[in-house]
Amino acid sequence: MFDLVIIGMGPGGIAASIYAKRGNLNVLCLEKNMLGGELNYIDKIDNYPGLNNITGSSLAYKLMEHIDELNINYKIESVIDINKIDNGYEIISNKNKYLTKNIILATGRVAKKLGLENEDRLLGRGISHCAVCDGAFFKNKNVCIVGGGMSALQEALYLANIVNKIYIIYRKDKFNVTSSIVDKVINNPKIEVIYNEEVKAINGNEYLESVTLKSGKLINTSGLFIYIGYTPSVNYIKNLDILDNDGYALVNNNFETKCKGIYAVGDLVKKDTYQIVLAMADGIRASLDIINKIVEK
Amino acid sequence: MFDLVIIGMGPGGIAASIYAKRGNLNVLCLEKNMLGGELNYIDKIDNYPGLNNITGSSLAYKLMEHIDELNINYKIESVIDINKIDNGYEIISNKNKYLTKNIILATGRVAKKLGLENEDRLLGRGISHCAVCDGAFFKNKNVCIVGGGMSALQEALYLANIVNKIYIIYRKDKFNVTSSIVDKVINNPKIEVIYNEEVKAINGNEYLESVTLKSGKLINTSGLFIYIGYTPSVNYIKNLDILDNDGYALVNNNFETKCKGIYAVGDLVKKDTYQIVLAMADGIRASLDIINKIVEK
Repeated sequence: MFDLVIIGMGPGGIAASIYAKRGNLNVLCLEKNMLGGELNYIDKIDNYPGLNNITGSSLAYKLMEHIDELNINYKIESVIDINKIDNGYEIISNKNKYLTKNIILATGRVAKKLGLENEDRLLGRGISHCAVCDGAFFKNKNVCIVGGGMSALQEALYLANIVNKIYIIYRKDKFNVTSSIVDKVINNPKIEVIYNEEVKAINGNEYLESVTLKSGKLINTSGLFIYIGYTPSVNYIKNLDILDNDGYALVNNNFETKCKGIYAVGDLVKKDTYQIVLAMADGIRASLDIINKIVEK
Repeated sequence: MFDLVIIGMGPGGIAASIYAKRGNLNVLCLEKNMLGGELNYIDKIDNYPGLNNITGSSLAYKLMEHIDELNINYKIESVIDINKIDNGYEIISNKNKYLTKNIILATGRVAKKLGLENEDRLLGRGISHCAVCDGAFFKNKNVCIVGGGMSALQEALYLANIVNKIYIIYRKDKFNVTSSIVDKVINNPKIEVIYNEEVKAINGNEYLESVTLKSGKLINTSGLFIYIGYTPSVNYIKNLDILDNDGYALVNNNFETKCKGIYAVGDLVKKDTYQIVLAMADGIRASLDIINKIVEK
Protein backbone atom coordinates (compact mmCIF):
# COMPACT_ATOMS: atom_id res chain seq x y z
CA MET A 1 0.00 0.00 0.00
CA PHE A 2 1.41 3.39 -1.01
CA ASP A 3 1.44 6.41 1.29
CA LEU A 4 0.52 8.56 -1.70
CA VAL A 5 -0.37 8.20 -5.36
CA ILE A 6 -0.19 11.35 -7.47
CA ILE A 7 -2.34 11.35 -10.60
CA GLY A 8 -1.20 13.75 -13.31
CA MET A 9 2.38 14.93 -13.68
CA GLY A 10 2.15 18.52 -14.81
CA PRO A 11 3.81 21.21 -12.67
CA GLY A 12 1.46 20.64 -9.70
CA GLY A 13 1.91 16.88 -9.59
CA ILE A 14 5.65 17.09 -10.14
CA ALA A 15 6.21 19.60 -7.34
CA ALA A 16 4.04 17.46 -5.04
CA SER A 17 6.10 14.38 -5.92
CA ILE A 18 9.41 16.13 -5.13
CA TYR A 19 8.21 17.11 -1.67
CA ALA A 20 6.60 13.72 -1.00
CA LYS A 21 9.75 11.84 -1.99
CA ARG A 22 12.05 14.10 0.00
CA GLY A 23 9.67 13.68 2.97
CA ASN A 24 10.35 9.94 2.62
CA LEU A 25 6.82 8.92 1.65
CA ASN A 26 6.26 5.77 -0.36
CA VAL A 27 4.92 7.62 -3.42
CA LEU A 28 3.83 6.51 -6.88
CA CYS A 29 3.08 8.91 -9.75
CA LEU A 30 0.79 8.15 -12.68
CA GLU A 31 0.71 10.17 -15.89
CA LYS A 32 -1.38 9.14 -18.86
CA ASN A 33 0.67 10.89 -21.49
CA MET A 34 3.83 13.01 -21.10
CA LEU A 35 5.61 14.20 -17.96
CA GLY A 36 5.10 17.95 -17.79
CA GLY A 37 1.52 17.77 -19.01
CA GLU A 38 0.29 20.89 -20.79
CA LEU A 39 3.79 22.40 -20.60
CA ASN A 40 4.68 20.26 -23.60
CA TYR A 41 2.38 22.38 -25.79
CA ILE A 42 3.80 25.77 -24.83
CA ASP A 43 6.19 27.38 -27.30
CA LYS A 44 7.89 29.86 -24.97
CA ILE A 45 7.86 30.54 -21.23
CA ASP A 46 9.32 33.73 -19.76
CA ASN A 47 7.79 33.64 -16.29
CA TYR A 48 9.22 30.54 -14.62
CA PRO A 49 11.76 32.19 -12.29
CA GLY A 50 15.33 31.16 -12.99
CA LEU A 51 14.64 29.57 -16.38
CA ASN A 52 13.84 32.49 -18.65
CA ASN A 53 13.08 32.09 -22.33
CA ILE A 54 12.59 28.34 -22.20
CA THR A 55 10.30 26.21 -24.35
CA GLY A 56 7.57 24.33 -22.52
CA SER A 57 9.03 21.02 -23.63
CA SER A 58 12.49 22.00 -22.32
CA LEU A 59 11.00 22.90 -18.94
CA ALA A 60 9.10 19.60 -18.97
CA TYR A 61 12.40 17.81 -19.70
CA LYS A 62 14.15 19.56 -16.81
CA LEU A 63 11.32 18.58 -14.49
CA MET A 64 11.61 14.98 -15.73
CA GLU A 65 15.35 15.02 -15.01
CA HIS A 66 14.61 16.28 -11.51
CA ILE A 67 12.13 13.41 -10.97
CA ASP A 68 14.67 10.90 -12.24
CA GLU A 69 17.53 12.25 -10.13
CA LEU A 70 15.42 11.89 -6.98
CA ASN A 71 14.41 8.34 -8.05
CA ILE A 72 10.74 9.18 -7.95
CA ASN A 73 8.61 6.24 -9.04
CA TYR A 74 6.33 7.06 -12.00
CA LYS A 75 4.42 5.11 -14.60
CA ILE A 76 2.76 6.09 -17.84
CA GLU A 77 -0.75 4.81 -17.17
CA SER A 78 -4.22 6.26 -17.43
CA VAL A 79 -6.44 6.19 -14.34
CA ILE A 80 -9.95 4.92 -15.00
CA ASP A 81 -11.55 4.82 -11.57
CA ILE A 82 -10.99 5.34 -7.84
CA ASN A 83 -12.80 3.31 -5.16
CA LYS A 84 -12.91 3.78 -1.39
CA ILE A 85 -11.50 0.87 0.63
CA ASP A 86 -10.69 0.45 4.33
CA ASN A 87 -7.94 2.91 5.29
CA GLY A 88 -7.58 4.35 1.84
CA TYR A 89 -8.37 4.00 -1.83
CA GLU A 90 -8.02 1.59 -4.73
CA ILE A 91 -6.90 3.16 -7.99
CA ILE A 92 -7.70 1.35 -11.22
CA SER A 93 -5.60 2.28 -14.23
CA ASN A 94 -5.63 0.92 -17.75
CA LYS A 95 -2.89 -1.53 -16.70
CA ASN A 96 -2.95 -2.10 -12.93
CA LYS A 97 -4.62 -1.67 -9.57
CA TYR A 98 -2.94 0.22 -6.73
CA LEU A 99 -3.81 0.65 -3.06
CA THR A 100 -2.92 3.93 -1.36
CA LYS A 101 -3.61 5.87 1.81
CA ASN A 102 -3.65 9.24 0.05
CA ILE A 103 -4.17 10.61 -3.44
CA ILE A 104 -3.28 13.93 -5.05
CA LEU A 105 -5.36 14.68 -8.15
CA ALA A 106 -3.35 16.91 -10.51
CA THR A 107 -4.81 16.23 -13.93
CA GLY A 108 -5.40 19.87 -14.86
CA ARG A 109 -7.76 21.17 -17.47
CA VAL A 110 -7.90 21.56 -21.21
CA ALA A 111 -8.84 24.75 -23.06
CA LYS A 112 -11.82 24.46 -25.36
CA LYS A 113 -10.99 24.94 -29.01
CA LEU A 114 -12.68 26.66 -31.92
CA GLY A 115 -12.23 23.49 -33.95
CA LEU A 116 -10.54 25.23 -36.87
CA GLU A 117 -7.71 24.22 -39.16
CA ASN A 118 -4.26 25.53 -38.03
CA GLU A 119 -5.53 25.96 -34.46
CA ASP A 120 -3.32 23.25 -32.95
CA ARG A 121 -0.36 24.01 -35.19
CA LEU A 122 -0.25 27.73 -34.32
CA LEU A 123 -0.84 27.24 -30.56
CA GLY A 124 2.08 29.02 -28.90
CA ARG A 125 2.86 30.64 -32.26
CA GLY A 126 0.34 33.42 -31.96
CA ILE A 127 -2.54 31.48 -30.47
CA SER A 128 -2.78 31.51 -26.68
CA HIS A 129 -5.23 30.79 -23.88
CA CYS A 130 -3.49 32.92 -21.23
CA ALA A 131 -2.90 36.69 -21.35
CA VAL A 132 -0.87 36.72 -18.13
CA CYS A 133 1.44 34.04 -19.56
CA ASP A 134 1.82 35.35 -23.08
CA GLY A 135 0.64 38.98 -23.18
CA ALA A 136 4.19 40.31 -22.86
CA PHE A 137 5.15 38.60 -26.13
CA PHE A 138 2.68 40.91 -27.95
CA LYS A 139 3.88 44.29 -26.65
CA ASN A 140 2.75 47.07 -29.00
CA LYS A 141 1.22 44.56 -31.42
CA ASN A 142 -2.38 43.92 -32.47
CA VAL A 143 -4.25 40.96 -31.03
CA CYS A 144 -7.71 39.40 -31.23
CA ILE A 145 -9.69 37.88 -28.39
CA VAL A 146 -12.44 35.36 -29.02
CA GLY A 147 -15.15 35.18 -26.37
CA GLY A 148 -17.32 37.45 -24.28
CA GLY A 149 -17.39 35.94 -20.81
CA MET A 150 -15.86 37.37 -17.65
CA SER A 151 -12.39 35.90 -18.36
CA ALA A 152 -12.36 37.24 -21.90
CA LEU A 153 -13.11 40.75 -20.61
CA GLN A 154 -10.61 40.60 -17.74
CA GLU A 155 -7.90 39.35 -20.06
CA ALA A 156 -8.77 42.13 -22.54
CA LEU A 157 -8.09 44.78 -19.89
CA TYR A 158 -4.85 43.04 -18.90
CA LEU A 159 -3.74 42.98 -22.54
CA ALA A 160 -4.81 46.59 -23.15
CA ASN A 161 -2.06 47.64 -20.77
CA ILE A 162 0.53 45.93 -23.01
CA VAL A 163 -0.52 45.63 -26.66
CA ASN A 164 -1.33 48.25 -29.31
CA LYS A 165 -4.88 47.27 -30.23
CA ILE A 166 -7.36 44.55 -29.30
CA TYR A 167 -10.30 43.23 -31.31
CA ILE A 168 -12.79 41.28 -29.23
CA ILE A 169 -14.69 38.94 -31.54
CA TYR A 170 -17.95 37.88 -29.92
CA ARG A 171 -20.76 35.85 -31.46
CA LYS A 172 -23.60 37.60 -29.58
CA ASP A 173 -24.91 41.17 -29.87
CA LYS A 174 -24.06 42.16 -26.30
CA PHE A 175 -22.06 40.91 -23.29
CA ASN A 176 -23.97 38.84 -20.75
CA VAL A 177 -21.57 39.79 -17.95
CA THR A 178 -23.16 41.95 -15.25
CA SER A 179 -20.17 43.83 -13.93
CA SER A 180 -18.71 47.30 -14.26
CA ILE A 181 -15.94 45.59 -16.21
CA VAL A 182 -18.15 45.70 -19.33
CA ASP A 183 -18.08 49.52 -19.38
CA LYS A 184 -14.35 49.55 -18.81
CA VAL A 185 -13.83 47.26 -21.79
CA ILE A 186 -16.21 49.20 -24.06
CA ASN A 187 -14.67 52.54 -23.10
CA ASN A 188 -11.06 51.43 -23.39
CA PRO A 189 -9.56 53.25 -26.38
CA LYS A 190 -7.40 50.27 -27.31
CA ILE A 191 -10.31 47.81 -27.46
CA GLU A 192 -12.73 47.42 -30.38
CA VAL A 193 -15.59 44.97 -29.88
CA ILE A 194 -16.87 43.19 -32.98
CA TYR A 195 -20.28 41.75 -32.07
CA ASN A 196 -22.21 39.05 -33.96
CA GLU A 197 -19.05 37.65 -35.46
CA GLU A 198 -17.06 34.45 -35.35
CA VAL A 199 -13.61 33.37 -36.48
CA LYS A 200 -14.01 31.19 -39.54
CA ALA A 201 -10.36 30.66 -40.49
CA ILE A 202 -6.95 30.98 -38.85
CA ASN A 203 -4.22 31.98 -41.28
CA GLY A 204 -0.43 31.82 -41.01
CA ASN A 205 2.60 29.76 -41.90
CA GLU A 206 5.19 29.60 -39.12
CA TYR A 207 3.30 32.12 -36.99
CA LEU A 208 -0.26 33.44 -36.92
CA GLU A 209 -0.75 36.21 -39.48
CA SER A 210 -4.48 36.88 -39.67
CA VAL A 211 -7.97 35.59 -38.97
CA THR A 212 -10.93 35.52 -41.35
CA LEU A 213 -14.34 36.22 -39.84
CA LYS A 214 -17.66 34.65 -40.82
CA SER A 215 -18.58 37.82 -42.73
CA GLY A 216 -15.45 37.43 -44.82
CA LYS A 217 -13.62 40.29 -43.09
CA LEU A 218 -9.87 39.70 -42.68
CA ILE A 219 -8.08 40.96 -39.55
CA ASN A 220 -4.29 41.06 -39.57
CA THR A 221 -3.18 40.06 -36.08
CA SER A 222 -0.13 38.75 -34.24
CA GLY A 223 -2.13 37.14 -31.47
CA LEU A 224 -5.36 35.22 -31.03
CA PHE A 225 -6.44 34.69 -27.42
CA ILE A 226 -9.20 32.11 -27.27
CA TYR A 227 -11.40 32.31 -24.14
CA ILE A 228 -14.33 30.06 -24.78
CA GLY A 229 -13.92 28.01 -21.63
CA TYR A 230 -11.97 25.13 -20.14
CA THR A 231 -12.76 21.51 -19.42
CA PRO A 232 -11.19 20.16 -16.19
CA SER A 233 -9.87 16.62 -16.76
CA VAL A 234 -12.10 14.75 -14.34
CA ASN A 235 -13.71 11.81 -16.13
CA TYR A 236 -12.02 9.32 -13.78
CA ILE A 237 -13.35 11.03 -10.62
CA LYS A 238 -16.94 11.72 -11.58
CA ASN A 239 -18.09 9.12 -9.01
CA LEU A 240 -16.43 10.94 -6.13
CA ASP A 241 -18.85 13.89 -6.02
CA ILE A 242 -16.11 16.42 -5.27
CA LEU A 243 -16.62 18.77 -8.25
CA ASP A 244 -18.33 22.14 -8.51
CA ASN A 245 -20.80 22.98 -11.27
CA ASP A 246 -18.01 23.94 -13.65
CA GLY A 247 -16.20 20.64 -13.12
CA TYR A 248 -13.41 21.94 -10.85
CA ALA A 249 -12.46 20.06 -7.68
CA LEU A 250 -13.65 21.58 -4.40
CA VAL A 251 -10.95 21.65 -1.72
CA ASN A 252 -10.29 23.11 1.73
CA ASN A 253 -7.35 25.38 2.65
CA ASN A 254 -4.99 22.40 2.62
CA PHE A 255 -6.21 21.28 -0.82
CA GLU A 256 -8.03 18.26 0.61
CA THR A 257 -11.41 17.38 -0.92
CA LYS A 258 -14.30 16.22 1.23
CA CYS A 259 -13.00 12.65 0.64
CA LYS A 260 -10.47 12.27 3.45
CA GLY A 261 -7.01 11.66 1.99
CA ILE A 262 -7.91 12.80 -1.54
CA TYR A 263 -6.36 16.14 -2.46
CA ALA A 264 -6.64 18.20 -5.64
CA VAL A 265 -4.11 20.78 -6.83
CA GLY A 266 -3.14 22.99 -9.75
CA ASP A 267 -5.47 23.82 -12.62
CA LEU A 268 -8.00 21.28 -11.40
CA VAL A 269 -8.81 23.76 -8.61
CA LYS A 270 -10.54 27.02 -9.54
CA LYS A 271 -8.34 30.05 -9.04
CA ASP A 272 -7.97 33.68 -10.14
CA THR A 273 -5.11 32.86 -12.44
CA TYR A 274 -3.59 29.59 -13.63
CA GLN A 275 0.18 29.73 -13.50
CA ILE A 276 3.00 27.16 -13.32
CA VAL A 277 4.35 28.37 -9.98
CA LEU A 278 0.88 28.57 -8.46
CA ALA A 279 0.13 24.97 -9.44
CA MET A 280 3.47 23.94 -7.92
CA ALA A 281 2.68 25.80 -4.71
CA ASP A 282 -0.62 23.89 -4.42
CA GLY A 283 1.17 20.59 -4.93
CA ILE A 284 3.82 21.39 -2.33
CA ARG A 285 1.25 22.39 0.26
CA ALA A 286 -0.83 19.25 -0.35
CA SER A 287 2.20 16.97 -0.01
CA LEU A 288 3.36 18.67 3.18
CA ASP A 289 -0.14 18.38 4.65
CA ILE A 290 -0.15 14.65 3.91
CA ILE A 291 3.34 14.24 5.40
CA ASN A 292 2.35 16.17 8.53
CA LYS A 293 -0.69 13.99 9.03
CA ILE A 294 1.39 10.83 8.61
CA VAL A 295 4.23 11.85 10.92
CA GLU A 296 1.93 13.30 13.59
CA LYS A 297 -0.33 10.22 13.62
CA MET B 1 5.92 58.04 -9.93
CA PHE B 2 6.29 54.28 -10.15
CA ASP B 3 3.35 51.90 -10.45
CA LEU B 4 5.14 49.55 -8.06
CA VAL B 5 8.27 49.41 -5.94
CA ILE B 6 9.34 45.98 -4.69
CA ILE B 7 11.49 45.98 -1.57
CA GLY B 8 13.62 42.87 -1.09
CA MET B 9 14.74 40.66 -3.95
CA GLY B 10 14.63 37.14 -2.62
CA PRO B 11 12.44 34.57 -4.39
CA GLY B 12 9.18 36.36 -3.50
CA GLY B 13 10.31 39.79 -4.69
CA ILE B 14 11.92 38.40 -7.83
CA ALA B 15 8.82 36.45 -8.89
CA ALA B 16 6.70 39.54 -8.21
CA SER B 17 9.02 41.64 -10.36
CA ILE B 18 8.84 39.21 -13.31
CA TYR B 19 5.04 39.33 -13.34
CA ALA B 20 4.92 43.10 -12.80
CA LYS B 21 7.35 43.76 -15.64
CA ARG B 22 5.60 41.37 -18.03
CA GLY B 23 2.30 43.04 -17.09
CA ASN B 24 3.89 46.29 -18.30
CA LEU B 25 3.97 48.06 -14.95
CA ASN B 26 6.53 50.77 -14.31
CA VAL B 27 8.34 48.83 -11.59
CA LEU B 28 11.46 49.49 -9.50
CA CYS B 29 13.12 46.89 -7.27
CA LEU B 30 15.27 47.66 -4.26
CA GLU B 31 17.57 45.15 -2.56
CA LYS B 32 19.89 46.13 0.25
CA ASN B 33 22.44 43.39 -0.28
CA MET B 34 22.46 40.56 -2.87
CA LEU B 35 19.84 39.55 -5.42
CA GLY B 36 18.42 36.23 -4.27
CA GLY B 37 18.48 37.20 -0.61
CA GLU B 38 18.80 34.26 1.78
CA LEU B 39 19.28 31.87 -1.15
CA ASN B 40 22.88 33.02 -1.25
CA TYR B 41 23.55 31.29 2.08
CA ILE B 42 22.13 27.87 1.10
CA ASP B 43 24.66 25.21 0.19
CA LYS B 44 22.36 22.85 -1.72
CA ILE B 45 18.78 22.97 -2.98
CA ASP B 46 16.98 19.85 -4.22
CA ASN B 47 13.39 21.07 -4.16
CA TYR B 48 13.22 23.88 -6.70
CA PRO B 49 11.43 22.07 -9.54
CA GLY B 50 13.49 21.85 -12.71
CA LEU B 51 16.79 22.87 -11.14
CA ASN B 52 17.75 19.92 -8.98
CA ASN B 53 20.95 19.80 -6.97
CA ILE B 54 21.77 23.47 -7.32
CA THR B 55 23.59 25.71 -4.88
CA GLY B 56 21.63 28.62 -3.47
CA SER B 57 24.05 31.07 -5.02
CA SER B 58 23.66 29.42 -8.46
CA LEU B 59 19.89 29.67 -8.20
CA ALA B 60 20.27 33.30 -7.13
CA TYR B 61 22.47 33.89 -10.17
CA LYS B 62 19.90 32.30 -12.51
CA LEU B 63 17.20 34.51 -11.02
CA MET B 64 19.45 37.54 -11.52
CA GLU B 65 19.97 36.58 -15.18
CA HIS B 66 16.20 36.32 -15.58
CA ILE B 67 15.77 39.80 -14.10
CA ASP B 68 18.43 41.18 -16.43
CA GLU B 69 17.03 39.52 -19.54
CA LEU B 70 13.62 41.08 -18.89
CA ASN B 71 15.29 44.48 -18.27
CA ILE B 72 13.82 44.77 -14.82
CA ASN B 73 15.00 47.91 -13.08
CA TYR B 74 16.72 47.22 -9.75
CA LYS B 75 19.04 49.07 -7.42
CA ILE B 76 21.16 47.99 -4.49
CA GLU B 77 19.82 50.34 -1.83
CA SER B 78 18.57 49.93 1.68
CA VAL B 79 15.10 51.25 2.52
CA ILE B 80 14.97 53.32 5.68
CA ASP B 81 11.38 54.56 5.82
CA ILE B 82 8.03 54.67 4.02
CA ASN B 83 5.64 57.61 4.23
CA LYS B 84 2.05 57.97 3.03
CA ILE B 85 1.50 60.67 0.41
CA ASP B 86 -1.48 61.57 -1.80
CA ASN B 87 -2.20 58.67 -4.18
CA GLY B 88 0.64 56.53 -2.91
CA TYR B 89 3.80 56.37 -0.88
CA GLU B 90 7.23 57.94 -0.59
CA ILE B 91 10.09 55.49 -0.05
CA ILE B 92 13.27 56.78 1.52
CA SER B 93 16.38 54.71 0.93
CA ASN B 94 19.96 55.27 2.03
CA LYS B 95 20.57 57.00 -1.33
CA ASN B 96 17.31 58.29 -2.81
CA LYS B 97 13.62 59.04 -2.49
CA TYR B 98 11.03 57.35 -4.70
CA LEU B 99 7.31 57.92 -5.21
CA THR B 100 5.10 54.96 -6.00
CA LYS B 101 1.44 53.95 -6.19
CA ASN B 102 2.05 50.45 -4.82
CA ILE B 103 4.65 48.62 -2.76
CA ILE B 104 5.42 44.94 -2.29
CA LEU B 105 7.36 44.23 0.90
CA ALA B 106 9.48 41.09 0.42
CA THR B 107 12.32 41.47 2.88
CA GLY B 108 11.92 38.05 4.48
CA ARG B 109 13.17 37.00 7.88
CA VAL B 110 16.39 35.92 9.49
CA ALA B 111 16.86 32.82 11.65
CA LYS B 112 18.09 33.51 15.18
CA LYS B 113 21.52 32.10 15.89
CA LEU B 114 23.10 30.40 18.86
CA GLY B 115 26.00 32.85 18.59
CA LEU B 116 28.68 30.16 18.50
CA GLU B 117 31.93 29.83 16.59
CA ASN B 118 31.61 27.84 13.32
CA GLU B 119 27.86 28.49 13.20
CA ASP B 120 27.98 30.71 10.11
CA ARG B 121 30.71 28.69 8.42
CA LEU B 122 28.88 25.35 8.72
CA LEU B 123 25.44 26.71 7.74
CA GLY B 124 24.33 24.53 4.84
CA ARG B 125 27.14 22.12 5.70
CA GLY B 126 25.28 20.31 8.44
CA ILE B 127 23.60 23.26 10.10
CA SER B 128 20.07 24.05 8.89
CA HIS B 129 17.00 25.98 9.90
CA CYS B 130 14.53 24.01 7.75
CA ALA B 131 13.73 20.30 8.02
CA VAL B 132 11.43 20.31 4.98
CA CYS B 133 14.21 21.87 2.90
CA ASP B 134 17.16 19.84 4.13
CA GLY B 135 15.84 16.76 5.95
CA ALA B 136 16.29 14.55 2.88
CA PHE B 137 20.04 15.22 2.92
CA PHE B 138 20.24 13.40 6.29
CA LYS B 139 18.46 10.17 5.39
CA ASN B 140 19.43 7.41 7.86
CA LYS B 141 21.86 9.74 9.64
CA ASN B 142 21.87 11.16 13.18
CA VAL B 143 20.83 14.76 13.74
CA CYS B 144 20.37 17.18 16.62
CA ILE B 145 17.62 19.73 17.04
CA VAL B 146 18.05 22.77 19.25
CA GLY B 147 14.86 24.24 20.68
CA GLY B 148 11.63 23.14 22.31
CA GLY B 149 8.90 25.26 20.77
CA MET B 150 6.12 24.11 18.47
CA SER B 151 8.27 24.35 15.32
CA ALA B 152 11.09 22.37 16.89
CA LEU B 153 8.69 19.55 17.77
CA GLN B 154 6.92 19.55 14.39
CA GLU B 155 10.23 19.48 12.58
CA ALA B 156 11.40 16.63 14.85
CA LEU B 157 8.45 14.49 13.76
CA TYR B 158 9.07 15.38 10.12
CA LEU B 159 12.73 14.39 10.47
CA ALA B 160 11.91 11.19 12.41
CA ASN B 161 10.31 9.89 9.21
CA ILE B 162 13.64 10.31 7.38
CA VAL B 163 16.69 10.16 9.65
CA ASN B 164 18.09 7.41 11.90
CA LYS B 165 18.09 9.18 15.26
CA ILE B 166 17.26 12.63 16.62
CA TYR B 167 18.54 14.30 19.77
CA ILE B 168 16.44 17.27 20.84
CA ILE B 169 18.58 19.54 22.95
CA TYR B 170 16.41 21.80 25.09
CA ARG B 171 17.50 24.19 27.81
CA LYS B 172 14.40 23.75 30.01
CA ASP B 173 13.23 20.73 32.03
CA LYS B 174 9.97 20.27 30.11
CA PHE B 175 8.26 21.46 26.92
CA ASN B 176 5.96 24.45 27.28
CA VAL B 177 3.91 23.43 24.24
CA THR B 178 0.36 22.38 25.09
CA SER B 179 -0.45 20.02 22.25
CA SER B 180 -0.69 16.30 21.74
CA ILE B 181 2.43 16.71 19.63
CA VAL B 182 4.52 16.63 22.83
CA ASP B 183 3.49 13.02 23.57
CA LYS B 184 4.14 12.02 19.96
CA VAL B 185 7.65 13.44 20.16
CA ILE B 186 8.41 11.88 23.55
CA ASN B 187 7.06 8.47 22.49
CA ASN B 188 8.76 8.43 19.09
CA PRO B 189 11.42 5.68 19.25
CA LYS B 190 13.80 7.67 17.03
CA ILE B 191 13.73 10.78 19.23
CA GLU B 192 15.72 11.27 22.45
CA VAL B 193 15.07 14.48 24.35
CA ILE B 194 17.98 15.91 26.31
CA TYR B 195 16.52 18.43 28.78
CA ASN B 196 18.39 21.12 30.70
CA GLU B 197 21.13 21.25 28.13
CA GLU B 198 22.59 23.70 25.64
CA VAL B 199 24.99 23.48 22.74
CA LYS B 200 28.27 25.03 23.83
CA ALA B 201 30.43 24.28 20.79
CA ILE B 202 29.93 23.34 17.14
CA ASN B 203 32.71 21.13 15.77
CA GLY B 204 33.69 20.24 12.23
CA ASN B 205 36.04 21.13 9.41
CA GLU B 206 34.39 21.08 5.98
CA TYR B 207 31.13 19.68 7.39
CA LEU B 208 29.57 19.48 10.84
CA GLU B 209 30.94 16.53 12.82
CA SER B 210 29.74 16.92 16.39
CA VAL B 211 28.39 19.29 19.02
CA THR B 212 29.63 19.73 22.57
CA LEU B 213 26.99 20.36 25.24
CA LYS B 214 27.29 22.58 28.30
CA SER B 215 27.82 19.50 30.49
CA GLY B 216 30.80 18.55 28.37
CA LYS B 217 28.99 15.69 26.63
CA LEU B 218 29.96 15.25 22.97
CA ILE B 219 27.34 14.16 20.41
CA ASN B 220 28.51 12.98 16.99
CA THR B 221 25.98 14.29 14.49
CA SER B 222 25.66 14.99 10.78
CA GLY B 223 22.99 17.62 11.23
CA LEU B 224 22.13 20.44 13.58
CA PHE B 225 18.68 21.97 13.10
CA ILE B 226 18.42 25.22 15.04
CA TYR B 227 14.85 26.30 15.87
CA ILE B 228 15.15 29.12 18.35
CA GLY B 229 13.03 31.55 16.38
CA TYR B 230 13.12 33.97 13.48
CA THR B 231 13.27 37.73 13.19
CA PRO B 232 11.25 39.18 10.30
CA SER B 233 13.18 42.00 8.61
CA VAL B 234 10.84 44.87 9.36
CA ASN B 235 12.80 47.72 10.90
CA TYR B 236 11.93 50.04 8.00
CA ILE B 237 8.16 49.45 8.35
CA LYS B 238 7.71 49.67 12.10
CA ASN B 239 5.78 52.94 11.64
CA LEU B 240 3.18 51.32 9.42
CA ASP B 241 1.45 49.29 12.16
CA ILE B 242 0.90 46.28 9.90
CA LEU B 243 2.76 43.63 11.94
CA ASP B 244 1.48 40.91 14.26
CA ASN B 245 2.96 40.27 17.71
CA ASP B 246 5.72 38.11 16.27
CA GLY B 247 6.74 40.78 13.77
CA TYR B 248 5.19 39.21 10.65
CA ALA B 249 3.16 41.33 8.22
CA LEU B 250 -0.61 40.89 8.38
CA VAL B 251 -2.22 40.59 4.94
CA ASN B 252 -5.55 39.71 3.33
CA ASN B 253 -6.13 36.93 0.78
CA ASN B 254 -4.50 39.03 -1.95
CA PHE B 255 -1.43 39.75 0.23
CA GLU B 256 -2.43 43.39 0.74
CA THR B 257 -1.86 44.88 4.19
CA LYS B 258 -4.35 47.23 5.77
CA CYS B 259 -2.40 50.08 4.10
CA LYS B 260 -4.03 50.27 0.69
CA GLY B 261 -1.46 49.56 -2.03
CA ILE B 262 1.13 48.05 0.34
CA TYR B 263 1.48 44.27 -0.05
CA ALA B 264 3.67 41.80 1.82
CA VAL B 265 4.79 38.41 0.48
CA GLY B 266 7.10 35.49 1.15
CA ASP B 267 8.73 34.80 4.50
CA LEU B 268 7.57 38.16 5.83
CA VAL B 269 4.08 36.62 6.00
CA LYS B 270 3.44 33.88 8.58
CA LYS B 271 2.81 30.49 6.99
CA ASP B 272 2.86 26.78 7.80
CA THR B 273 6.08 26.28 5.90
CA TYR B 274 8.58 28.67 4.32
CA GLN B 275 9.60 27.46 0.89
CA ILE B 276 11.06 29.10 -2.24
CA VAL B 277 8.11 28.24 -4.48
CA LEU B 278 5.57 29.35 -1.87
CA ALA B 279 7.27 32.75 -1.53
CA MET B 280 7.25 33.06 -5.33
CA ALA B 281 3.55 32.18 -5.45
CA ASP B 282 2.80 34.98 -2.96
CA GLY B 283 4.79 37.45 -5.05
CA ILE B 284 3.04 36.45 -8.27
CA ARG B 285 -0.40 36.77 -6.71
CA ALA B 286 0.41 40.18 -5.22
CA SER B 287 1.71 41.51 -8.54
CA LEU B 288 -1.32 40.22 -10.45
CA ASP B 289 -3.66 41.79 -7.91
CA ILE B 290 -1.91 45.14 -8.35
CA ILE B 291 -2.05 44.82 -12.15
CA ASN B 292 -5.75 43.92 -12.07
CA LYS B 293 -6.54 46.95 -9.91
CA ILE B 294 -4.58 49.21 -12.26
CA VAL B 295 -6.08 47.90 -15.51
CA GLU B 296 -9.64 47.75 -14.15
CA LYS B 297 -9.49 51.28 -12.73
